[in-house]
Amino acid sequence: MSELPGDSIGVAMVGHAFMGAVHSHAWRSVHRFFDVPLTPRMAVLCGRDERRTKEAAQRYGWESVETDWRALLEREDIDLVDICTPGYTHAEIATAALDAGKHVLCEKPLANSVAEAELMARAASRAGERGVRSMVAFNYRRVPALALARRMVAEGRLGRLRHVRAVYLQDWLSDPSAPMSWRLRREQAGSGALGDIGAHIVDATQFVTGDVLAGVTGRTETFVDRRPLPDGEGTDEVTVDDSAVFLGRFSGGALATFEATRYALGRKNAMRIELNGSRGSLSFDFESMNELWFYDGEEPTGTTGFRRILVTEADHPYLGAWWPPGHLLGYEHTFTHEIADLLTAIGNGKEPQPSFADGLRVQRVLEAVERSSADESRWSAI
Amino acid sequence: MSELPGDSIGVAMVGHAFMGAVHSHAWRSVHRFFDVPLTPRMAVLCGRDERRTKEAAQRYGWESVETDWRALLEREDIDLVDICTPGYTHAEIATAALDAGKHVLCEKPLANSVAEAELMARAASRAGERGVRSMVAFNYRRVPALALARRMVAEGRLGRLRHVRAVYLQDWLSDPSAPMSWRLRREQAGSGALGDIGAHIVDATQFVTGDVLAGVTGRTETFVDRRPLPDGEGTDEVTVDDSAVFLGRFSGGALATFEATRYALGRKNAMRIELNGSRGSLSFDFESMNELWFYDGEEPTGTTGFRRILVTEADHPYLGAWWPPGHLLGYEHTFTHEIADLLTAIGNGKEPQPSFADGLRVQRVLEAVERSSADESRWSAI
Amino acid sequence: MSELPGDSIGVAMVGHAFMGAVHSHAWRSVHRFFDVPLTPRMAVLCGRDERRTKEAAQRYGWESVETDWRALLEREDIDLVDICTPGYTHAEIATAALDAGKHVLCEKPLANSVAEAELMARAASRAGERGVRSMVAFNYRRVPALALARRMVAEGRLGRLRHVRAVYLQDWLSDPSAPMSWRLRREQAGSGALGDIGAHIVDATQFVTGDVLAGVTGRTETFVDRRPLPDGEGTDEVTVDDSAVFLGRFSGGALATFEATRYALGRKNAMRIELNGSRGSLSFDFESMNELWFYDGEEPTGTTGFRRILVTEADHPYLGAWWPPGHLLGYEHTFTHEIADLLTAIGNGKEPQPSFADGLRVQRVLEAVERSSADESRWSAI
Amino acid sequence: MSELPGDSIGVAMVGHAFMGAVHSHAWRSVHRFFDVPLTPRMAVLCGRDERRTKEAAQRYGWESVETDWRALLEREDIDLVDICTPGYTHAEIATAALDAGKHVLCEKPLANSVAEAELMARAASRAGERGVRSMVAFNYRRVPALALARRMVAEGRLGRLRHVRAVYLQDWLSDPSAPMSWRLRREQAGSGALGDIGAHIVDATQFVTGDVLAGVTGRTETFVDRRPLPDGEGTDEVTVDDSAVFLGRFSGGALATFEATRYALGRKNAMRIELNGSRGSLSFDFESMNELWFYDGEEPTGTTGFRRILVTEADHPYLGAWWPPGHLLGYEHTFTHEIADLLTAIGNGKEPQPSFADGLRVQRVLEAVERSSADESRWSAI
Repeated sequence: MSELPGDSIGVAMVGHAFMGAVHSHAWRSVHRFFDVPLTPRMAVLCGRDERRTKEAAQRYGWESVETDWRALLEREDIDLVDICTPGYTHAEIATAALDAGKHVLCEKPLANSVAEAELMARAASRAGERGVRSMVAFNYRRVPALALARRMVAEGRLGRLRHVRAVYLQDWLSDPSAPMSWRLRREQAGSGALGDIGAHIVDATQFVTGDVLAGVTGRTETFVDRRPLPDGEGTDEVTVDDSAVFLGRFSGGALATFEATRYALGRKNAMRIELNGSRGSLSFDFESMNELWFYDGEEPTGTTGFRRILVTEADHPYLGAWWPPGHLLGYEHTFTHEIADLLTAIGNGKEPQPSFADGLRVQRVLEAVERSSADESRWSAI
Repeated sequence: MSELPGDSIGVAMVGHAFMGAVHSHAWRSVHRFFDVPLTPRMAVLCGRDERRTKEAAQRYGWESVETDWRALLEREDIDLVDICTPGYTHAEIATAALDAGKHVLCEKPLANSVAEAELMARAASRAGERGVRSMVAFNYRRVPALALARRMVAEGRLGRLRHVRAVYLQDWLSDPSAPMSWRLRREQAGSGALGDIGAHIVDATQFVTGDVLAGVTGRTETFVDRRPLPDGEGTDEVTVDDSAVFLGRFSGGALATFEATRYALGRKNAMRIELNGSRGSLSFDFESMNELWFYDGEEPTGTTGFRRILVTEADHPYLGAWWPPGHLLGYEHTFTHEIADLLTAIGNGKEPQPSFADGLRVQRVLEAVERSSADESRWSAI
Repeated sequence: MSELPGDSIGVAMVGHAFMGAVHSHAWRSVHRFFDVPLTPRMAVLCGRDERRTKEAAQRYGWESVETDWRALLEREDIDLVDICTPGYTHAEIATAALDAGKHVLCEKPLANSVAEAELMARAASRAGERGVRSMVAFNYRRVPALALARRMVAEGRLGRLRHVRAVYLQDWLSDPSAPMSWRLRREQAGSGALGDIGAHIVDATQFVTGDVLAGVTGRTETFVDRRPLPDGEGTDEVTVDDSAVFLGRFSGGALATFEATRYALGRKNAMRIELNGSRGSLSFDFESMNELWFYDGEEPTGTTGFRRILVTEADHPYLGAWWPPGHLLGYEHTFTHEIADLLTAIGNGKEPQPSFADGLRVQRVLEAVERSSADESRWSAI
Repeated sequence: MSELPGDSIGVAMVGHAFMGAVHSHAWRSVHRFFDVPLTPRMAVLCGRDERRTKEAAQRYGWESVETDWRALLEREDIDLVDICTPGYTHAEIATAALDAGKHVLCEKPLANSVAEAELMARAASRAGERGVRSMVAFNYRRVPALALARRMVAEGRLGRLRHVRAVYLQDWLSDPSAPMSWRLRREQAGSGALGDIGAHIVDATQFVTGDVLAGVTGRTETFVDRRPLPDGEGTDEVTVDDSAVFLGRFSGGALATFEATRYALGRKNAMRIELNGSRGSLSFDFESMNELWFYDGEEPTGTTGFRRILVTEADHPYLGAWWPPGHLLGYEHTFTHEIADLLTAIGNGKEPQPSFADGLRVQRVLEAVERSSADESRWSAI
């Protein structure tokens, strides 16, 4: 009785670090809150270290484990592969899984290079023709406030967009004695703040505006170029950016500024987006993720002002599934929403969003920023 | 492999409305995030309507259903009864369950009267002697920001408390055409805003200050005394308060103001507490539940000010189990924390907090407010 | 050329402490910004100590000095007496000045007792019949945001009022070693926080709502009952309240809570008012005095929320005289506005607001709070 | 008696529009609040239209008028010329006045081009050798919160600076039907948002950081290239930027982003600066100009957070002259502070800050932004 009726979908997840924990929670919860056409079966957790993978499987509630992701492709009981590993592994796993007929959910950034992302987008396109679906996990699209922002832009509440202002501020590298990690090595991470969190604001602004960046000019910086190794013995070189700042222009004419950094002391996860249009403005900060601020320029000046929409009403995106007004959602809900949308798309035979092509588009922007930064910040078309 | 090792505890839940949904989520999630000594088994969901109870059991993940709560007391596989029904049913179910040797988690307010609450507290006391545990579900104690507030008060960061300011503001009755419900009938709900949300701020301020109210003076008001029946045929009388305001004095000398209302248009769930002491002040608003504002009066005037502590650090209460800094928690996490604390207390053979005695103490305050309101707001000792 | 054309009005000011400084600034500035029918001539500053009064006159720009306020009544060149002395002197000076045919502006609270306030209101009434005008200086009525609030309430934007929530929080007595002063002696100050700042929130809420308090229940508290004398030799007894909390009911049915304290550590001048009505809500905090927060309950739930009206638009009250939008006003502007309104009323032969009768009404509320506090907080009608 | 003792200084002001009104207020008020070594005599107001200049002189309190600024240079009673005219007139008036031995206060931007600004800086340097003083009126340096920010940076509270984030957002051109004005013509205004408000954030960030920009990359945009003439007959071409965005690098290594726009609908005067250093961070918004937000990275993570310093304490810059804590200052106070500093420097025989050399430095940055924008946003050293 504890399981819902209807079709189930066999899920395998690769990787079980931070993203694995939050994805597991979403797979476990999605059908308890959303009326999804497919009920997930948490079939396999895949990781290289068998003992640690088994511990994680018990902790997170996966039925079995594998230590080689290739084994997943052979298993008939697996319909979908959820890729939660570092970026440099995405291309190989995702293309193989898609070619093997498995739906794929892939963490962001899609890949570490445009070349890899192109391969993946082509694989996704081929797979799509056979009804095999793919999605890149830009979870911030599923923050209800940002989904509401997109809806309001699409409805014309902002008019013609003039300005986009986006920052993603963290501070965990601000201390120069914070240790070295794979995220600070170019060959594994691709880039630093740019690809890790800059990718989110590129995707989120393109999502909310319904527009794409046409060109950028940028500059990246590495403030601390050597860091101690975690074991305390010696130091190693940081080969990625600590911070990336860039200007951009959207196809529709909006002027944009972007900043991604891990050195904004005191800002823990300040992913902030502000849009100014000819009819209205919107402002968002992930550190207050249940709020969307709206300025309605159509109202009389005497009584208008930025209003704090508490995005917890039943008619707000995704909120019908949750609690009464004023009862906040948190970070992990964005993943539950993502998987609800994914299952709905698969069940209904539609392409989920954001597609691998969307992920590739973000990758092109990141590359253009790096190109500009390497060439005296010269403007770089996308 | 999907289940954790260690002892399990068989859980039965009575009721499956709003509170049932959120409790289910907590029972399902607690062991995935917290190292609890007992792993919950979601054994039985109990409700009067069999069809609807079965649907809810499937939705929320309960193994079986019962339609009479008395049946739970006979079942050997049930170790704990979680009571999510309206207040007027609490006393009977809870005392029977405790007497039958089942641990009990009971939703707030503990009961609809002091007399009932006294019965329950006595049953809890008797049960405790036999190692049978009980807890009243004042979930706001498990908001990390309020748990941090209590810690800071206990550490002396506020010095001697002078002022307590607490409001719980909602607006769902602001519209006079909102329909009649059981929550507006005295015989079922006990009281209106006073017992429903006023109870929360009484408990939360006693919890955070580590002190108890010694006396109150109050006034209750019913703004709309008849409301349409849900079926649209005729109206019925509202027999509870729409709003309660009261002044109080804590044993330690702090002066307090309280307000509970469902008519504060635009305030969706604004449970706000502010404390002023001789060394510091704290301020909290549930609509921004991941924040605690602290004023450190020991700092030089030139650089001090209310600071926004984003309560998402690993050393904040409960946060070690969740996400990196800046990744917010939501409403339902308070229930997961509550059940983590409950399972830990049961596993360790300790009395969980808040106890039924704590619930009784809140009930006495509510009664004193009503007594004062009925007697020209005269001061009423507790 | 440096003086404006038109009639002038000879002004004498009694007292030159804090209030004297800010009134002087207003008298000096009012005609530079507002088109007032009368141009003030800053004729005489009156104080008991000749040397200090002369210094103050030079500093603030008064033409001459007097050391006995009675001398002002004889002077033909004086048309208006501005009383900035402690409350216990108001009744004598104001009634004498009015009887001598001088317009009077009197600082708040109007008097230290209802009996004195009644005398003054009668004198004002008599004077009014002869065209001699009087005004009590509740300057917060001239905060543009509060004047806008009153306008919005009067226009019906809030509908029927249900709740009034007002606090005036300061912290300058929080430190028990802060020295004794006249403000802490009943015979001079009348009361403590109640009369000094509680008076402001009583007047301001009656002003904004356009309604009056019908009854109250209250409690006052003195936290520190002896304080060191300023010269460091010994201590003296504090004979006024440190804090006053009270509940009230407006004639129109709104339920109200009030708190006035000088012990809210970290709150420097937090005069806060929130109103909830059936159609909308308003919220104000003097520490952000250029903002008024409005919730429009008539808007769709999906896009409504408390909006921050930055009260700096040309169509906001008083703002046409000042700077472009977004250029803030400060504390002293409230006095400039007050005097602009006073001069306009005198010039146009109208009674200025707030009248001495309004001041008396506030005094009655303060007395009712004290009466209730002394009688077990029993409800006290006004 | 209404005048203060001590030396006086004869002041002439050129221009009487918005800046003239606010400067007049400051000249009238400065010695009433600050102990300045020289008392200003408001001797002459100068404007081209005699009738309107006379009206303004009466309104603002100037003793006499002139219609040709050259006449001021001949007058023995004039010691200082305050230039409040559009930027294209600054160079000629300022250099002539300085050469004639008059101290000069000149509104910002210093000039419309680097060439003019160089001339002015040389004239200021020559004059300085003869004890003739000059100052450019970047009034935002005198916002107490920003002066406090500079003090805290200088004291090392922020450690090594990594990020500077500055925007100046207004919205008065957001409406495409807003009329044409001299501010939108290159030959008069020099540039658009860049020179008008971008200049402020360039100066303010250099002031607060105590550092200078070493290079920039930028892009300017004109969203609406024709606007209706004020008389309603036809349209004219907008020849300046509507918005300028630029990245920069400070000499000390901090990475910076800047944005100046008049199209940020709903932002009225949002001049915002945020600094992140290795030990702390600061954040400021002119729309809440009495607040400075500080994050102290040296505190334990458990209780730190951005704190709102209400900059109204007696030990804050300039505040000793004003009101008790919590009583806010407004926009015009920045000018009173500016003139207090100017008079103090002149009286003490010191060079006031910011000097014309500082103004020139800002001009070089603006030019570099335009150069970069015209050259594919290529990096431009300063």
